Amino acid sequence: MNNIAPTHFPIDDRLATRWSPYVFSEQPVPRDTLRSVFEAARWSASSFNEQPWRFLVSRKNRDDTHDRIVNCLAEGNQVWAKHAPVLLIGIYRHRFAESGKENKAAPHDLGLAAGQMVFEASRHDLFVHMMIGLDPAAARRTFGIPNDAEAYTAMAIGYRDAADNADASLREREAKPCQRLPQCDFVFSNQFGTSAEF
Amino acid sequence: MNNIAPTHFPIDDRLATRWSPYVFSEQPVPRDTLRSVFEAARWSASSFNEQPWRFLVSRKNRDDTHDRIVNCLAEGNQVWAKHAPVLLIGIYRHRFAESGKENKAAPHDLGLAAGQMVFEASRHDLFVHMMIGLDPAAARRTFGIPNDAEAYTAMAIGYRDAADNADASLREREAKPCQRLPQCDFVFSNQFGTSAEF
Repeated sequence: MNNIAPTHFPIDDRLATRWSPYVFSEQPVPRDTLRSVFEAARWSASSFNEQPWRFLVSRKNRDDTHDRIVNCLAEGNQVWAKHAPVLLIGIYRHRFAESGKENKAAPHDLGLAAGQMVFEASRHDLFVHMMIGLDPAAARRTFGIPNDAEAYTAMAIGYRDAADNADASLREREAKPCQRLPQCDFVFSNQFGTSAEF
Repeated sequence: MNNIAPTHFPIDDRLATRWSPYVFSEQPVPRDTLRSVFEAARWSASSFNEQPWRFLVSRKNRDDTHDRIVNCLAEGNQVWAKHAPVLLIGIYRHRFAESGKENKAAPHDLGLAAGQMVFEASRHDLFVHMMIGLDPAAARRTFGIPNDAEAYTAMAIGYRDAADNADASLREREAKPCQRLPQCDFVFSNQFGTSAEF
């Protein structure tokens, strides 16, 4: 099964074929591939080049970090994410390292870096499922996250499982069609709510 | 001048050659190209598929939206951004439309969508310079942004200006080398601060 976005205007194939699976193959992700995915985050833009993103990464069956990340996820995510060969927690630092001032852009810049990771992942036939359903306090306790940083997102990364041996309810969640608001509902000009005519 | 990231691990060419110019060509951006850039945002992932992003877009010399966006930017951004052929304000909605509950992921998801826009833009030889230096209250007044939404970022989009007729101080800002933290400083395993060994 492939979910291809029914786009109204042409976009890059890798953006149109990106989606968030609930079922991953058990195939491990090679070390160098993961390094490239993090390298894509590394070269993301950020406010004042602060690079506020930090990641706690785990590979399934390598050590106990994978299980400890699963335990920080919302229950609804645990059921499927525990099978992903790679899990990570996305963290941002609240303040600029140099000035100590609040970095208002930090959550945004973590998202921007995540976007680059998703895209690099797709180059290696990997899929990413992002999650916000994560207990930041549990992550802080479990991984010693300092008070000036915040666990904010999680990501499951892996290859697609083409075989149909997955839990039927997960396959059902995957089968939901991709739907999005049309551009007239979110691209405005002149005033908020007025569709841009260009 | 081209800024190519000195990567430690291979990444997609379009991620490695992405950077944030201060000088844009006057060449206008075709309507259909802009539509593709917003379409890339449209197909981004978001928490519960809420799609919290909204954009106020302007094309220079088409109407007064461009000037009104410039007036909402921090002064340090106004000096260069006013020349960009396309300016936009990135806005997120605070709450889920259906439940009215707070959408904690909203700033992140605007960043994730922006990442897809930057990538689609690069396919059309466009460059993007993102800004957080924006007055949200001024944007609210100017564009009638409702209280359940927040102006958060701005983006300048345009083609590179290869000619060397730009302000010397802007060229100087552009000439700064790309620098980033090594992965050992932001990719952790086991505990926050412990470099991942994979």
